[in-house]
Amino acid sequence: MAIVVTEIDRADAAVAAALGAAGVATVHEAQGRTGLMASYMRPIYRPVCIGGTAVTCEVAPGDNWMIHVAVEQCRPGDILVVTPTSPCEDGYFGDLLATSLKARGVKGLIINAGVRDIATLTEIGFPVWSKAVSAQGTVKETIANVNVPVVCAGALVTPGDVVVADDDGVVVVPAAKAAAVLEKAKAREANEAAKREALAGGVLGLDLYKMRERLAAKGLKYVERLGDA
Amino acid sequence: MAIVVTEIDRADAAVAAALGAAGVATVHEAQGRTGLMASYMRPIYRPVCIGGTAVTCEVAPGDNWMIHVAVEQCRPGDILVVTPTSPCEDGYFGDLLATSLKARGVKGLIINAGVRDIATLTEIGFPVWSKAVSAQGTVKETIANVNVPVVCAGALVTPGDVVVADDDGVVVVPAAKAAAVLEKAKAREANEAAKREALAGGVLGLDLYKMRERLAAKGLKYVERLGDA
Amino acid sequence: MAIVVTEIDRADAAVAAALGAAGVATVHEAQGRTGLMASYMRPIYRPVCIGGTAVTCEVAPGDNWMIHVAVEQCRPGDILVVTPTSPCEDGYFGDLLATSLKARGVKGLIINAGVRDIATLTEIGFPVWSKAVSAQGTVKETIANVNVPVVCAGALVTPGDVVVADDDGVVVVPAAKAAAVLEKAKAREANEAAKREALAGGVLGLDLYKMRERLAAKGLKYVERLGDA
Amino acid sequence: MAIVVTEIDRADAAVAAALGAAGVATVHEAQGRTGLMASYMRPIYRPVCIGGTAVTCEVAPGDNWMIHVAVEQCRPGDILVVTPTSPCEDGYFGDLLATSLKARGVKGLIINAGVRDIATLTEIGFPVWSKAVSAQGTVKETIANVNVPVVCAGALVTPGDVVVADDDGVVVVPAAKAAAVLEKAKAREANEAAKREALAGGVLGLDLYKMRERLAAKGLKYVERLGDA
Amino acid sequence: MAIVVTEIDRADAAVAAALGAAGVATVHEAQGRTGLMASYMRPIYRPVCIGGTAVTCEVAPGDNWMIHVAVEQCRPGDILVVTPTSPCEDGYFGDLLATSLKARGVKGLIINAGVRDIATLTEIGFPVWSKAVSAQGTVKETIANVNVPVVCAGALVTPGDVVVADDDGVVVVPAAKAAAVLEKAKAREANEAAKREALAGGVLGLDLYKMRERLAAKGLKYVERLGDA
Amino acid sequence: MAIVVTEIDRADAAVAAALGAAGVATVHEAQGRTGLMASYMRPIYRPVCIGGTAVTCEVAPGDNWMIHVAVEQCRPGDILVVTPTSPCEDGYFGDLLATSLKARGVKGLIINAGVRDIATLTEIGFPVWSKAVSAQGTVKETIANVNVPVVCAGALVTPGDVVVADDDGVVVVPAAKAAAVLEKAKAREANEAAKREALAGGVLGLDLYKMRERLAAKGLKYVERLGDA
Repeated sequence: MAIVVTEIDRADAAVAAALGAAGVATVHEAQGRTGLMASYMRPIYRPVCIGGTAVTCEVAPGDNWMIHVAVEQCRPGDILVVTPTSPCEDGYFGDLLATSLKARGVKGLIINAGVRDIATLTEIGFPVWSKAVSAQGTVKETIANVNVPVVCAGALVTPGDVVVADDDGVVVVPAAKAAAVLEKAKAREANEAAKREALAGGVLGLDLYKMRERLAAKGLKYVERLGDA
Repeated sequence: MAIVVTEIDRADAAVAAALGAAGVATVHEAQGRTGLMASYMRPIYRPVCIGGTAVTCEVAPGDNWMIHVAVEQCRPGDILVVTPTSPCEDGYFGDLLATSLKARGVKGLIINAGVRDIATLTEIGFPVWSKAVSAQGTVKETIANVNVPVVCAGALVTPGDVVVADDDGVVVVPAAKAAAVLEKAKAREANEAAKREALAGGVLGLDLYKMRERLAAKGLKYVERLGDA
Repeated sequence: MAIVVTEIDRADAAVAAALGAAGVATVHEAQGRTGLMASYMRPIYRPVCIGGTAVTCEVAPGDNWMIHVAVEQCRPGDILVVTPTSPCEDGYFGDLLATSLKARGVKGLIINAGVRDIATLTEIGFPVWSKAVSAQGTVKETIANVNVPVVCAGALVTPGDVVVADDDGVVVVPAAKAAAVLEKAKAREANEAAKREALAGGVLGLDLYKMRERLAAKGLKYVERLGDA
Repeated sequence: MAIVVTEIDRADAAVAAALGAAGVATVHEAQGRTGLMASYMRPIYRPVCIGGTAVTCEVAPGDNWMIHVAVEQCRPGDILVVTPTSPCEDGYFGDLLATSLKARGVKGLIINAGVRDIATLTEIGFPVWSKAVSAQGTVKETIANVNVPVVCAGALVTPGDVVVADDDGVVVVPAAKAAAVLEKAKAREANEAAKREALAGGVLGLDLYKMRERLAAKGLKYVERLGDA
Repeated sequence: MAIVVTEIDRADAAVAAALGAAGVATVHEAQGRTGLMASYMRPIYRPVCIGGTAVTCEVAPGDNWMIHVAVEQCRPGDILVVTPTSPCEDGYFGDLLATSLKARGVKGLIINAGVRDIATLTEIGFPVWSKAVSAQGTVKETIANVNVPVVCAGALVTPGDVVVADDDGVVVVPAAKAAAVLEKAKAREANEAAKREALAGGVLGLDLYKMRERLAAKGLKYVERLGDA
Repeated sequence: MAIVVTEIDRADAAVAAALGAAGVATVHEAQGRTGLMASYMRPIYRPVCIGGTAVTCEVAPGDNWMIHVAVEQCRPGDILVVTPTSPCEDGYFGDLLATSLKARGVKGLIINAGVRDIATLTEIGFPVWSKAVSAQGTVKETIANVNVPVVCAGALVTPGDVVVADDDGVVVVPAAKAAAVLEKAKAREANEAAKREALAGGVLGLDLYKMRERLAAKGLKYVERLGDA
């Protein structure tokens, strides 16, 4: 047996979009360095940067049937998150499914497996983060769950969570924390602008962040030559 | 001892080119989901799409001597397929060999190993699909076979077979089946155009492919909330 | 305890730049096929080609503190080489550190770990070769050495050595050999120009390099058909 | 900030032990093929088979400080589950920590990282499932959470869940489902005994499971010779 | 559509067994260093050494249905060779299937995927060489071919070929060459016995194989100290 | 050109043996957590523990010729360290070479590549740490250096250095530091005995190492329930 959950609590769309604009590194830091997917999740083209709300979809290895089921659950502003129930790099997703998701206003796909037709996906501007690129076809035989919590590429994704994805990878923000994380992300950005200017002007991080004393206390020594150590 | 086979039965050049235009995913499906090389075989630049006839070349690990031998066996419209006799990621191939292959009308290189000079290869437009990019030089000491059947990146390649390669990877079509596969690939493309239009217009795959009944029969349930399951 | 060595013997800047112009494959060959880093070290954008003098920096896993220390030791024309004391793919380096290095005239970063903010780094043109792209944040708790010899991605790097990095990867040239290697690299380039022209004109490598006799002596046989072997 | 949760709802100890006796494959099937950790989690010695209740522990990369904190939270019958906040293969755990856990009646360790002193651990009979064996030492600088839900090697582990580990790997059973899963596991075992006997006596699975008709309906054909297909 | 070929030309059983006794390294050398499967194919227990005739079986990813079909095609002295149609590490095979194969006199299993119940398989002495150990369960939905030529872990296997497997891995010998390869393997073994004795007595390979002159001709120099080079 | 260095400064044999007895983890800690080879270097059998002086040997990919040259340079108490000039997993070493090394009193082999005949090597008790087990044969065509400093599996090895290898992996100690490291290793062992006893008696590491105050200062909080955080 498998289920499709039809009502999920989506994070606020504007917050999701704003987190998308902040980018993965900033959002990841803003929420305390959690929620990052594995670094093997790479975008099929660059640059790219999106934020949206998660619809989750389990698939059996080598079987993309449930993606068709999940499409119906997607709304404008969503990001579809697909993960196989055991590791698989087959090409679950191609230009027809992308056409369908695009028609529903979906912002992109996160798939812990393979994707194909990437030339077309690049051309039509439908972004995908995947574990692999593979033309390997899949079957439609086994059912699995849609819109239940899943672990995708090492990160827990609950339906409705915010997903942010860009050139650096993919991060997940729990819906309940999205607004607070956005606040912190904005503060971080504001804070970084001043730092960037100082560093660009030649100020050293050692001084800007006042690190010298603590480094010395840890035992760091400066010597002129290696032999002097 | 090793041999070079000088006469091979190439698939029809027009068929090979037409399969190249159809692309890897379509061709792979059209021939029943066989013949795909491993997903680690990636192009050095994108987008790119070729179809041609295979000249095969074994090489010893860290030894590119036989590629020089294989060049002479190549004709316009061919694609050179190189695989080491044990796994190796050295840079067997660079701009001089590409210049030579280009001069002979060869369409590209498939190498289950490393390639170098990729900036130049990109500039002159000689496409390569490889396991790695590596500047590691190779020697010229050990002979091996040219134009015998080889297993390259998990796929069996018989000299003269059609090789199709694009952004999605590499697929091999046995020469004897090439025309029939092209037929099916064309039918598939025609068929997909109508589907694409329907999906772009908002029709769901669930309805287009009449999946709902079979999904229900398998036991798929729709619930409003996770707790309802 | 850990040390920072403040005086290192840098290779000649002009020689380093000239080696950079020659490129990784040529330099690697010119110095006898040594000094190449592992092929997993990939540039975040292409095409790119640099040569400079190494400042080395050890970092603890998940801890980028020492990069801030290393920045101060960098001078115009340097390339920063960072390697963790045990394998780690976290995102040690982003746009703020790049801004700082750029302000100091540093040509690029080689890091046997992860990098983030790659969209910005691409935009501002600060090249990085890394093992991974990852937004994973790091701490500042553990000290390590700056400007001591390190093994980075399989290659020994002594501070002051020449580092050459391009689309093909990264190679290290000991400072003491830099001038001689440059000489050989230039000779190689000159030599290759003539070969390239011959090959472009249709001359076979088999003839250009006079390989046929030696191949036959090794036992290579030409047969018309596979069955003839 | 980080927290240590001191009160967790452990699954029943007898149920956990009984699930341990049933083994990973049976338990994984009994709960609907979920909860399995990645196949790279391997035991340091074989044969071995345990079941217990999870105490969870996050650690920073290259930093085993929190394991010392987690030890205090462990009780007899527990299994300690450790996962780094970003991927790391350092040797977080050795014979001293094992001595401490053994003294507290802990049944074993599951660590999504490296372990060392495996000769001693084997000798004293303290089982560990890990991603790597590595002598690499770690620091004690960064705090993280103990007894919060974690994703370990792809599986969600909530403190108090049952962990079953044997030669085949590691599976997690949510505490609330443990009794029901045990029931099904026993039924499965009873059921398999009869099947095993039949198969040992030469009955074919094709007949025992009545597969022939369904295979034929799917299109399976029997031919005498490959040419006959 | 998929087929099961019921009549295959098995290599001579006595030859297969004798090749098994010779072991993988010797057989691999005797047939000219071909036919070796990838080094990731490891036995579940050691020591172990078998030789038999191949029955081949394709399986869909995550689907072990066809193994049940293949069992019926197996005869005493056979070795079952299973490979998924795209990469998969699920646990396709466990103690029930092993019981069935054992009852039919099958010598072992070669599977380019995962295996489970390895404690039991070790206990009952049914050897398996696999890519992974995994308890992950599989479905029975998709048909595929039995007893057609397959590529398994990089090696081409034609039904009836001899498969030799031991602690070093797995090698395939084409049925038509089996007798000749056995001849060479025996010659090699005889030849090695004398060498082993000489080497055990302190004779150097340099002298036994008369390598010194050729090494000098290649340019090998002996120096007392590194500085002397 | 390549060289063989015939006179190397070996660390004291008794010190090397004593370091071997201390084991990899202890020695690695005693010398400040440096010198460890990559964790993929695994022993072919367990338990095993050796310490000896390094003779180093470069080999070309797929070419074991130089191992024969290196054998002559080995003396009783040495450990042979072999690394390919580019990554390779072929089976460079088997029972004949082991017989030869054994006859010369060599304690074991460290090879950043593949090994074969492991059943025999296990039987005769010649320990090997390798990257892979592979029966793949190698050629004898290309020369390389013996007894020059090499990077092997990420660690710099200078001929004469102490190599310690056991179930946990391989660590290298520079000859000049060997005696001092042994001193520290012994102190560490003495120190650990008392700790082990305390921990076995139920004392917590938190108390034994007086960690509680520093943890609190870092911000660690204890809560009864997750919701309390």
